[in-house]
Amino acid sequence: MNATPAITALDLAAFNAAYARAIDSDTLEAWPAFFTERCRYRITHAEAQAEGLPGGLVYADSRAMLEDRIAALREANIFEPQRYRHILGWPHLLAADGDSAQAETPFAVVRTMHSGEQMVFASGVYIDRLVRGAGGLRLAERLVVCDSRRTDTLLALPL
Amino acid sequence: MNATPAITALDLAAFNAAYARAIDSDTLEAWPAFFTERCRYRITHAEAQAEGLPGGLVYADSRAMLEDRIAALREANIFEPQRYRHILGWPHLLAADGDSAQAETPFAVVRTMHSGEQMVFASGVYIDRLVRGAGGLRLAERLVVCDSRRTDTLLALPL
Amino acid sequence: MNATPAITALDLAAFNAAYARAIDSDTLEAWPAFFTERCRYRITHAEAQAEGLPGGLVYADSRAMLEDRIAALREANIFEPQRYRHILGWPHLLAADGDSAQAETPFAVVRTMHSGEQMVFASGVYIDRLVRGAGGLRLAERLVVCDSRRTDTLLALPL
Repeated sequence: MNATPAITALDLAAFNAAYARAIDSDTLEAWPAFFTERCRYRITHAEAQAEGLPGGLVYADSRAMLEDRIAALREANIFEPQRYRHILGWPHLLAADGDSAQAETPFAVVRTMHSGEQMVFASGVYIDRLVRGAGGLRLAERLVVCDSRRTDTLLALPL
Repeated sequence: MNATPAITALDLAAFNAAYARAIDSDTLEAWPAFFTERCRYRITHAEAQAEGLPGGLVYADSRAMLEDRIAALREANIFEPQRYRHILGWPHLLAADGDSAQAETPFAVVRTMHSGEQMVFASGVYIDRLVRGAGGLRLAERLVVCDSRRTDTLLALPL
Repeated sequence: MNATPAITALDLAAFNAAYARAIDSDTLEAWPAFFTERCRYRITHAEAQAEGLPGGLVYADSRAMLEDRIAALREANIFEPQRYRHILGWPHLLAADGDSAQAETPFAVVRTMHSGEQMVFASGVYIDRLVRGAGGLRLAERLVVCDSRRTDTLLALPL
């Protein structure tokens, strides 16, 4: 009996690199496929998280909702107004077996405006639950906890 | 005779990810345990380092001193005034065997103030000497060389 | 017949860490040796890249040109005017075998001025083609695509 080898931090690093690349290279339509069909994607901030507040800044519980979000972004942003660059840290594995994993990964995002101006737009941590299926790793849940409650996520690209 | 496999960059990346998480998730009390009982933790900046100046901005030579430092921080910062996010690069291994390793790891820290404002607070390099014991990897020495001599480390969280 | 194992993301991460260290520790003279004798090093920005514009901000097609560039920088910058800190993401492997690899690696660079002031100087992605020879990995091509068209690369250190 050959057990599937457990998911490693190296697997997650490769997954996260592909995830960030989909957003930062403006191939946003590829982004929802990093999630399972039924999934949970939420953006919140550290204070709300610490106080157990329910309201995320962004909330989706299916891949279809993520696809809608991208369609809406494309409609709103006819002239590409900004560009993101995700810089991700090394995934901290909390649990892993052959089928699933839980991990936390720190992130920072540099935003470049159309004018060329650059700034740190967001930092925080991904709190993830992933599953491995026939198509490889997928996010069953990604909770994006931003460090700042000021991070403007309404019109923003995905984090 | 089975020699212990040498410490790898992958081992150090996992160690550093856990180290940064202890600070950034505000579980500072876990931070001193990343060091050996007798250790060396020093924060300095590149100019002082280049000129061979002795004075570090922060200096500790035992885990007990690191614990004192955390206790003092907790007392001073009743209302959490800031939040850090460490973004670490890949460890550059200088030497490694089964028991110890020397490595350099670049870092940047994004600071988030209570107001929500965010900035690059510090960048630099960790110059490390680690040992592996029964409890896993521990820092025998971490020299934090900040790129800027202006980085204010007096009241700050650990780097 | 033992085929050489394919180049891995881990190999590239170690290579990139050494590359960034050569620049950030001010041992610039070591930088050209990360490239093959005949190579292609180009800095451009995302808009120019998207529009297929030919003009890179910086262009070199041999290691000798890279050496000239470093010599010129040394001459111009008698008093070290700035310091870089590269923070690199995990390499996204596009193709790899035992002899060569193609990969994309995101980067951000924090610049520290002599005054101590720090800022995000550049972000973007390396689009690389590497070969493995007797001396290890070398860049046959590194295309540095900056996110901002404002990134001032004329007098700058290498990215």
